[in-house]
Amino acid sequence: MVKLVGQIKEFGGFLQLYQHDSDMCGCSMSFSVYLPPQAAQGEVPVLWWLSGLTCTDENFRVKAGAQRYAAELGVALVIPDTSPRGMQVPDDAAYYLGQGAGFYVNATQVPWSRHFRMYDYITQELPATVASLSLPLSDRQSIAGHSMGGHGALVVALSNPGRFRSVSAFAPICHPMCSTWGRQIFQAYLGEDQADWQQYDACCLIQQGAPALPMLVDQGTADEFYPQELLTEDLVSACHSAGFPADIRLQSGYDHSFHFVATFIGEHIRWHHRRLR
Amino acid sequence: MVKLVGQIKEFGGFLQLYQHDSDMCGCSMSFSVYLPPQAAQGEVPVLWWLSGLTCTDENFRVKAGAQRYAAELGVALVIPDTSPRGMQVPDDAAYYLGQGAGFYVNATQVPWSRHFRMYDYITQELPATVASLSLPLSDRQSIAGHSMGGHGALVVALSNPGRFRSVSAFAPICHPMCSTWGRQIFQAYLGEDQADWQQYDACCLIQQGAPALPMLVDQGTADEFYPQELLTEDLVSACHSAGFPADIRLQSGYDHSFHFVATFIGEHIRWHHRRLR
Repeated sequence: MVKLVGQIKEFGGFLQLYQHDSDMCGCSMSFSVYLPPQAAQGEVPVLWWLSGLTCTDENFRVKAGAQRYAAELGVALVIPDTSPRGMQVPDDAAYYLGQGAGFYVNATQVPWSRHFRMYDYITQELPATVASLSLPLSDRQSIAGHSMGGHGALVVALSNPGRFRSVSAFAPICHPMCSTWGRQIFQAYLGEDQADWQQYDACCLIQQGAPALPMLVDQGTADEFYPQELLTEDLVSACHSAGFPADIRLQSGYDHSFHFVATFIGEHIRWHHRRLR
Repeated sequence: MVKLVGQIKEFGGFLQLYQHDSDMCGCSMSFSVYLPPQAAQGEVPVLWWLSGLTCTDENFRVKAGAQRYAAELGVALVIPDTSPRGMQVPDDAAYYLGQGAGFYVNATQVPWSRHFRMYDYITQELPATVASLSLPLSDRQSIAGHSMGGHGALVVALSNPGRFRSVSAFAPICHPMCSTWGRQIFQAYLGEDQADWQQYDACCLIQQGAPALPMLVDQGTADEFYPQELLTEDLVSACHSAGFPADIRLQSGYDHSFHFVATFIGEHIRWHHRRLR
């Protein structure tokens, strides 16, 4: 059961705010859809956006300025939350575990495994839920994200060949198996066996031969988490040794914030749009 | 003593975050300046932005998407806070009084009169403070704002002839003497004598013959505070009877939020820019 809980006009289109009961996550989940003005005339292509640690579906729609470009180009945005939420959902004092930090994996460890199934939620339940709304959205879809959501976008795109026309990421956690954040998160959600971590690591997926798709990555050089948590250079190496074509750019002087995302989101949406036509 | 407490690169320019000890307000105050990339080559014109109830200087720089246009056109943004702040500053449980709600007036009533001198702060102390930074800002200046800040922008521009090339407002409180918000705020800050309220009421200033300057106002028709708190039609009447030229537009279906501001901020900045050249 999906409920429309809000509708806000922006750039001639509409931000639609939804809530639904998620079987996968065992709780009520929120998501937002931006329908550009062109959706009044027929189907529009879709860009999925995965957000970073501590975000809900609100941060991107309020801070990134993406709707301006989505309206100009006629692209819909689908913006999920980053984790299950609620009193019955486990949490942790660390901002990189628990609510706000689903990491786009299916957790296998207690106490996380009941609710933290964000990989299946993003790849299966939410697409079916969005489809049930009968919005004018075409099958031409791409995916993008920021930080933890950049990791999520890369992993989801690499693991589902043919489903997305393109993938892009802002300051993604490129190689979580080798970063402090990633190792703590994987240990908590997936346990000690590192063989179980590889399916959620973009560098591993590329090394293991994931089929190519157009990939664009931007990384600010003044990012407080670069390079140690993000390990962008490992993604460059993985792409190079696997012969995986990717445009991975260092942007001088930019930090990890939404000011960085806002600066380049127009270029990313335009880049996706060329592949969604 | 002004301190630079943060600097964030955005759209090739820089958001500079400042704090200073305000004599006028008797507390530490924050403000932000966005310097577009053109500021590296010489002086740029300035758009002052006054924010609405509950805002700090952060909301506009994070939510409005204005920096994109400021960077494109070479306009600096100066973004003050909306009130004095701190433990020693009086406050109120109502969101429309006290901290976050300076209303751009000089309060005369206890307990507000010691700190709540936002009119003098915005028109005198902050301009002098910004000037002391020796940033490449020209004397060509315009002013804009949203809601309470739209009221502030109109009042400050109308009361300081020749100082601003143009003024614009999003969903301004046009006639506070006749709105519930305005009457409660004026009573608290200025006392019972309505003769003291008129200097802070855009409709009164226009009726009393304030010299004309280019004025642009946008008002969403789905705004939850329209018309009763904003009284846009009173501004239309005041301009009409005073022969004051103004472009006051109703925008169908837009609400009071930053999604509305984001939709039209580009048009406003472009409109100001034509008058700032």
